[in-house]
Amino acid sequence: MSRRSATRREPVRTQTSGVGALLTDLYQLTMLDAYYRLGMERIGVFEFFVRRQRDTRNFMVAAGLELALDYLESLRFTPQELDWLASTQRFSDELLARLEHFRFTGNVFAMPEGTVFFASEPLLRIVAPLPEAQFVESRIINLMHHPILVASKAARCRLAAPHSMLIDFGLRRSHGAQAAIHGSRASYIAGFDATSNVEAARLFGIPISSTMAHSFVQAHDLEAQAFRNFTAYRPQDLVVLIDTYDITRGALRAAALARELRAAGGRVEAVRIDSGELALETRRVREILDRNECSDVRIFVSGDLDEHAIETLQAARAPIDAYYVGTRLSVSMDAPALDCVYTLQQYADRPSRKRSQWKESWPGPRQVYRQYDPRGRIGMDVLACADEVMEGRALLREVMVNGRRTTPSPSLKQVRRHCAEELASLPLVLRGLERGCHSPVKVSARQHDLAVQCDRRPT
Amino acid sequence: MSRRSATRREPVRTQTSGVGALLTDLYQLTMLDAYYRLGMERIGVFEFFVRRQRDTRNFMVAAGLELALDYLESLRFTPQELDWLASTQRFSDELLARLEHFRFTGNVFAMPEGTVFFASEPLLRIVAPLPEAQFVESRIINLMHHPILVASKAARCRLAAPHSMLIDFGLRRSHGAQAAIHGSRASYIAGFDATSNVEAARLFGIPISSTMAHSFVQAHDLEAQAFRNFTAYRPQDLVVLIDTYDITRGALRAAALARELRAAGGRVEAVRIDSGELALETRRVREILDRNECSDVRIFVSGDLDEHAIETLQAARAPIDAYYVGTRLSVSMDAPALDCVYTLQQYADRPSRKRSQWKESWPGPRQVYRQYDPRGRIGMDVLACADEVMEGRALLREVMVNGRRTTPSPSLKQVRRHCAEELASLPLVLRGLERGCHSPVKVSARQHDLAVQCDRRPT
Repeated sequence: MSRRSATRREPVRTQTSGVGALLTDLYQLTMLDAYYRLGMERIGVFEFFVRRQRDTRNFMVAAGLELALDYLESLRFTPQELDWLASTQRFSDELLARLEHFRFTGNVFAMPEGTVFFASEPLLRIVAPLPEAQFVESRIINLMHHPILVASKAARCRLAAPHSMLIDFGLRRSHGAQAAIHGSRASYIAGFDATSNVEAARLFGIPISSTMAHSFVQAHDLEAQAFRNFTAYRPQDLVVLIDTYDITRGALRAAALARELRAAGGRVEAVRIDSGELALETRRVREILDRNECSDVRIFVSGDLDEHAIETLQAARAPIDAYYVGTRLSVSMDAPALDCVYTLQQYADRPSRKRSQWKESWPGPRQVYRQYDPRGRIGMDVLACADEVMEGRALLREVMVNGRRTTPSPSLKQVRRHCAEELASLPLVLRGLERGCHSPVKVSARQHDLAVQCDRRPT
Repeated sequence: MSRRSATRREPVRTQTSGVGALLTDLYQLTMLDAYYRLGMERIGVFEFFVRRQRDTRNFMVAAGLELALDYLESLRFTPQELDWLASTQRFSDELLARLEHFRFTGNVFAMPEGTVFFASEPLLRIVAPLPEAQFVESRIINLMHHPILVASKAARCRLAAPHSMLIDFGLRRSHGAQAAIHGSRASYIAGFDATSNVEAARLFGIPISSTMAHSFVQAHDLEAQAFRNFTAYRPQDLVVLIDTYDITRGALRAAALARELRAAGGRVEAVRIDSGELALETRRVREILDRNECSDVRIFVSGDLDEHAIETLQAARAPIDAYYVGTRLSVSMDAPALDCVYTLQQYADRPSRKRSQWKESWPGPRQVYRQYDPRGRIGMDVLACADEVMEGRALLREVMVNGRRTTPSPSLKQVRRHCAEELASLPLVLRGLERGCHSPVKVSARQHDLAVQCDRRPT
């Protein structure tokens, strides 16, 4: 291992290394075969961006970069993979020979994780010999898409309840293991406080939070006995689930237990309600707890929550201390996919763009300059050619040179802090859950000119 | 390795083994700690089912069972994982000692993959000492949920276009690697013909299909040159993408190339159109190809397709030979999550159910009996107690005893054939894309009685 690779954050890498180089679309290999034989190995510039924003999103949050960089640094074809490719008789011997030594040797520019961005803006620019830059397309999109979805959704939850505790409970209905693990990380970046996911806690150091399941209550003859048995051995995190049979009785039993434990020096931290009309039920339960000398016992809720449910409960001033957010976060229920793409911007110093209907792209390497108003809020983003010098903060920075990270990755806490600052810089019109009136992105005059020039060329 | 484990299908297992036992919710470990200390280790029965059907689904397709069985057979805590758990100081020494030797030793009953099923019906019943049966909840749901989503969506695409070629192109916007790989497998089970996903092809032997990307065209000065360069080195799968700049010109260039290649003994298999009004464009392109002696060149389409788009194009009799279906399939766009749960049905021979509002469940171990009409179509499913003897085919079969598979897993082709038969058995009212009038599921009288008995017990 080189000195540079020591800057990788082990935890993130761990979860990409199990997947081989063949997790790609067949056409990548087909195109590589052609590129090598044609000698088309000059520098290609590709950019990853979201073409259109979903109607339900005013902004998005960058995430997944560390995964993409891990992938680029570790990309190799194993002898077994090459043998399998050979066995398909689809590829030339020249391709197989080249793949044996295939490495990503290019440069990468990117927005840091946690950065707020908008449609059309490149998050990632890859500059590498054409076959390398082309090959990584499928997996780069696959690695970055879901973390962006979850971070963007989690940020909306955070904006809906700025001061409540938010706990990720999305593991079980995430689409597979990687989504579960990186979804937890993405939600933590965007401001969640904790996760139920033990593996994500282990890998990334995310605070972990526990409760109990209905099955625990059901496995006992009596609910009160289940509560007592659960808490008798738990020194911390005593969150008691009170809705298995009847919420009122559950709350009374939890209160009785809390008083009993308190006398013995212990404590019930909270009750959890997972069903029913939560605004109503939490108010009833709050009253029961307060009447029974349990004002210190907090109320946590769960069950099909998302940013809209949270906003409604907050507006109703429901006495809720923490929200468990699961499925709707981890699958990004209202927008389970983004229209994200990885497009060729330039080959051998010749900018290009596609003009397919509704899929037109801007040509050439690009940069995003963010301009702020006097209060430090985002005023305008200018989408410019990469070599233009504009006012504002340039959002894309060099993060990899010759296939190696240039700087140590930021810690997850640093990323989370950066994201909080980014969310604080959103203008009011973009902070709400409903779609704001306009995108703050303007395209520079030179970028426009370049597109016109490209379109004039014969094809 | 025991003799029995040789019956595992290596490919499926490969993709679960990289993920550790800690991919679980913290409360599973918390509850285990309590169960062990309380000596609550008698037999628990849990069932996995979908609580409610999404409005957009008349039926679902079982998938993911092989993954779940692989998980149960291989579940272990590594010394590193145990060390980490100890370092959190959250767990008793007794729990850590038990986890060191933790194995799944229970029995499993399940619907075979590819089986059509409906809301409320158990797909999987796990019968094991309570701590084992409880612990596997989070990951079992995580493993089975997404394959069911994709298989169910893919089946709808298949029903919308019974005779067209359907190609999975979902890798890039799947939620991570596991979703990409197992999404391909699930769509193949439900009737897709091929995938673009090389890793899925390698692991499962799914036929693989290729095309070209816009970037390949853009990397050349001239589109015609790109087509020629692409095909010059490709002996098969010549699918030429014609919409990068202008579809009419692209079609003419593809036709010219096809005639040229034909003269030399080669062939352009198809053109692909990825944008625009596909019903209109495919008709125009068909005319261009036919007028230019290219009636043998087929037309493939892609771009945000799903079962509804396919149905519309089929109804318009658009001249389309193959559909690439990507994002909307792999994330199950209209229903990215199912309301699936894994609930305790019985502990120590005592059936139970939860009565949380809108989340009530049926108690006890259950079986599904499927009754057919004289034409072999599904007439009614009866949801009965597991020990009832009813008319009809019992859908849950024993697949694992004492933690080991009882029979070799079926081949993927067998599963696919089974699914085709299942789809053929759907009554007309459930075959359409719009929601049919009613669910064909009835609950047996004894099951009703058992629920009443449970509700009478004090809690």
